[in-house]
Amino acid sequence: MPTSADSVFVARSDGISAEGVRDQYADGKAAKVWEIFIGDKNSRTDNYRNFLVDLLRQKGCKRVLDVACGTGVDSIMLLEEGFDVTSVDASDKMLKYALKERWQRRKEAAFDKWTIEEANWLTLYDDIQEHIGDGFDAVICLGNSFAHLMDASGEQLEHKQAIKNFEKCLKPGGMLLIDHRNYDNILETGSTPAKSIYYNTSHTADIKTSVLFYCGKPSLVSMDYQIEGNKLSSEFRLSYYPHGLKRFTEILSEIFGAQAKHKLFGDFKDMNVVQNPAFYIHLIEKPRA
Amino acid sequence: MPTSADSVFVARSDGISAEGVRDQYADGKAAKVWEIFIGDKNSRTDNYRNFLVDLLRQKGCKRVLDVACGTGVDSIMLLEEGFDVTSVDASDKMLKYALKERWQRRKEAAFDKWTIEEANWLTLYDDIQEHIGDGFDAVICLGNSFAHLMDASGEQLEHKQAIKNFEKCLKPGGMLLIDHRNYDNILETGSTPAKSIYYNTSHTADIKTSVLFYCGKPSLVSMDYQIEGNKLSSEFRLSYYPHGLKRFTEILSEIFGAQAKHKLFGDFKDMNVVQNPAFYIHLIEKPRA
Amino acid sequence: MPTSADSVFVARSDGISAEGVRDQYADGKAAKVWEIFIGDKNSRTDNYRNFLVDLLRQKGCKRVLDVACGTGVDSIMLLEEGFDVTSVDASDKMLKYALKERWQRRKEAAFDKWTIEEANWLTLYDDIQEHIGDGFDAVICLGNSFAHLMDASGEQLEHKQAIKNFEKCLKPGGMLLIDHRNYDNILETGSTPAKSIYYNTSHTADIKTSVLFYCGKPSLVSMDYQIEGNKLSSEFRLSYYPHGLKRFTEILSEIFGAQAKHKLFGDFKDMNVVQNPAFYIHLIEKPRA
Amino acid sequence: MPTSADSVFVARSDGISAEGVRDQYADGKAAKVWEIFIGDKNSRTDNYRNFLVDLLRQKGCKRVLDVACGTGVDSIMLLEEGFDVTSVDASDKMLKYALKERWQRRKEAAFDKWTIEEANWLTLYDDIQEHIGDGFDAVICLGNSFAHLMDASGEQLEHKQAIKNFEKCLKPGGMLLIDHRNYDNILETGSTPAKSIYYNTSHTADIKTSVLFYCGKPSLVSMDYQIEGNKLSSEFRLSYYPHGLKRFTEILSEIFGAQAKHKLFGDFKDMNVVQNPAFYIHLIEKPRA
Repeated sequence: MPTSADSVFVARSDGISAEGVRDQYADGKAAKVWEIFIGDKNSRTDNYRNFLVDLLRQKGCKRVLDVACGTGVDSIMLLEEGFDVTSVDASDKMLKYALKERWQRRKEAAFDKWTIEEANWLTLYDDIQEHIGDGFDAVICLGNSFAHLMDASGEQLEHKQAIKNFEKCLKPGGMLLIDHRNYDNILETGSTPAKSIYYNTSHTADIKTSVLFYCGKPSLVSMDYQIEGNKLSSEFRLSYYPHGLKRFTEILSEIFGAQAKHKLFGDFKDMNVVQNPAFYIHLIEKPRA
Repeated sequence: MPTSADSVFVARSDGISAEGVRDQYADGKAAKVWEIFIGDKNSRTDNYRNFLVDLLRQKGCKRVLDVACGTGVDSIMLLEEGFDVTSVDASDKMLKYALKERWQRRKEAAFDKWTIEEANWLTLYDDIQEHIGDGFDAVICLGNSFAHLMDASGEQLEHKQAIKNFEKCLKPGGMLLIDHRNYDNILETGSTPAKSIYYNTSHTADIKTSVLFYCGKPSLVSMDYQIEGNKLSSEFRLSYYPHGLKRFTEILSEIFGAQAKHKLFGDFKDMNVVQNPAFYIHLIEKPRA
Repeated sequence: MPTSADSVFVARSDGISAEGVRDQYADGKAAKVWEIFIGDKNSRTDNYRNFLVDLLRQKGCKRVLDVACGTGVDSIMLLEEGFDVTSVDASDKMLKYALKERWQRRKEAAFDKWTIEEANWLTLYDDIQEHIGDGFDAVICLGNSFAHLMDASGEQLEHKQAIKNFEKCLKPGGMLLIDHRNYDNILETGSTPAKSIYYNTSHTADIKTSVLFYCGKPSLVSMDYQIEGNKLSSEFRLSYYPHGLKRFTEILSEIFGAQAKHKLFGDFKDMNVVQNPAFYIHLIEKPRA
Repeated sequence: MPTSADSVFVARSDGISAEGVRDQYADGKAAKVWEIFIGDKNSRTDNYRNFLVDLLRQKGCKRVLDVACGTGVDSIMLLEEGFDVTSVDASDKMLKYALKERWQRRKEAAFDKWTIEEANWLTLYDDIQEHIGDGFDAVICLGNSFAHLMDASGEQLEHKQAIKNFEKCLKPGGMLLIDHRNYDNILETGSTPAKSIYYNTSHTADIKTSVLFYCGKPSLVSMDYQIEGNKLSSEFRLSYYPHGLKRFTEILSEIFGAQAKHKLFGDFKDMNVVQNPAFYIHLIEKPRA
């Protein structure tokens, strides 16, 4: 019947570019909804801020590469905490906000030295070679950003290439901090926990979850966000590769080497105090030669 | 990353219209592949032909409504067996072949009386009212055709409306014969059995199966056919609603009434002699007032 | 400014297929408007019918090939007048109506013998070779149909190939009757006369005319029809190659040979009694060997 | 015939956003071609630079609003000449280059004070109100930029609204400098002069010109650029509203008032020394209250 013919499962909202949600800033109304959703400018949760800053300090990190800086919210947090930050993102629509903030605060020394570049994870090392020097102390890829990278090859070649590039940007002894949602749980339950561990929000987003299996293998998870707040409402779709914990850990090990130190966190806490976390955060160190 | 942005899961091949596969006849090359795949004109398996004809004869059926006639292969088989057939389909691209065959054989009395109409299942009773008379002895909807009708409402309203229309076209005591693939098994295994019980083919089609879950509920199964034969190869995608056996049986009962006689077949055989069939065929009778 | 970015001049209405107007029959409402517009089934003007039938009779034509039969209105007129007609068209959406009419009147000998085929002008001779025999007495291509064929090559190669195919389908001494609107006048005035010489209509269509020049050369004329009638209104766009009289005549001569007899009519009348006609009709004869 | 059905005249290159040409920078290869075409960074012709700077100085202008700054080439020229510049553009893809340049030269006082904003001409006054103060001494809209704004209304309402916004941004006595190609000549000849008066280029661009008339009125001019250089070649399409000199002058007068001083230049020269210029540049002053 004709109705069946037009069934198309589109992996993202119409007119929304690659990076998804934050590109909705392009449209004033959606931006307003999102700002209401995530709360104020100091929107990062204390849990997240403390976790990240403490970890970087403990490890003695000074130079940090934020490979999924988006609008710059995390990078700015790190700049304010005194780190030397290089920020990249593939979406110039998102970088626009980071660039604007950098310009407004250019009289602050930290911002004057802030490097922001467009870059593609698949060619990252070559794209930013001039900024790498002896390698960064830390590379961060947080906020479920890595899962935006799909598996076009069917063999996760893109995932490996991107992580290889992250590894190459690190100095020996440097660390990669990378997260992903608990897709094992999402696949099992068919639903996504609405609460964000990253944002301070008093609003709720109803997240309708779609899961696509190809030849029996999970290959795509899409989340339709319905955010309510102040009489405004907004809906958009973001899509992700559903990284399983076991396989993702194997890939890290494959690239950093079997001897690389790896530690896993759940929702910014030690795994022994958290059950069924919404996010997994991996910490893996590049071995000294 | 940009690559993720363009991920779109399209439920059918580009440029292929509603009804899918047989519309590939529009392109001469694809048609050739398909003809090689299904074999010759007498392509229906004996199992299928015998099952259908025997059943219609046992029940004393004379007037048959084929609601998914497509290119007419089943209708022609029934005409040749002496039944009085009315054939409908939603796709004029497919009906074209039925119309052409009818014209070529117009000197045969059975073909001269063959009614072929475009019709939409959702408005079927109204669309073909003039041809219904006191109701048909049998309505057939076979070849996994019904599963082409998607569930746009999310509550199977379309499925119920279509089956209600089939029921209204039957005379009291008439029977509906309707099938669907064993989607329970497809969901469980993530794969589709390549062998067809309908076609006499010596070629194999490799069927890559995608399953889409929405909020934990199976909502779409897509099959990418890769057919090989005579140096030609062809790929196309067909999409279906994954009817579960239990729920489909409930819907039939809901519409025909709890007292309606229902019998289930697996691959044209009694359920007690077949295990894990590729297709389920439902026979349900409209109660006499 | 963003508004300028989306400026796209689309040469036909959305969702309307190749042949344009008559495909609007696909949608019940539009079909109704069109039927109101063109009047009843006997919609061809007497001027047109008499012109065509008289001419064919004068020339002793018996076998006629209608290469732009569309829904069959002209072919049926000729069948009813006793001609032996072969009808082709590229659009199966339009042929559907011709096929339906043929079926309904299959008990009439003329209709029983009526050949209807899908064909493409660019491959016409090969497509219908089995029906050509010693060649047709006449090939007709009327109703401004030929102008639907665009000039993709920029050198009118398609136009020449199509006319060459028409010529090959004729027997020696056979004639081609082909028309086009008076595009010279349309280019000069920027507007299209709303009155049709083909249809008996009491309604008016407001035709908004677009003309596209490429490198100073007219390359496309689009007509947006706004038809009013019985509270229904409809708008659709048809596009044409703007054949100039001089160049078109040259092409005919190039293909049929300089010695071929050519006669020009304006609105079905002799050129000496008509001024600035809406349509030019060319009659050209294939020389006997 | 089917080929005609797909004729679509698209007013810009696929994947190229609103502002057209300079967005080709997004793709490294095209950018290279363009850079070869326009020559080096000091690409503005002396004629253009002298004309603009002399005029602004003569009129005692200090604060300039560049409403079509694009990648910033003109704004930077003015900054270097000591003007106080505010630059806006609708395309963030183009502004990206201006923002990058501003950042690199932030230690120069002029660049440190340079305001760059996204803005839409149709809402310009409201968009940048905070930067207007008592009004700018000059508003410039050059490089055939204004013609990018199409006439969606069919009555040039957008053109009037944009110019009204430019006028509102001026202080009393301030001047608007706005240009457009000599479309009168383009319409007459069907071709566009390839030589640019703005760029220092030793390469030639072959510009294929399309002109679209709607109901006899010129409504769109598209230019397909074919640029050759260093083994690279590139093609893209830019589309424009074909402003006629007479009507454009009337609109200026309508908005600035009949008493406003208006002076016309051809290719940066007095009209009495230039014949059939490629560009018209209008200078119009906002009357003092």
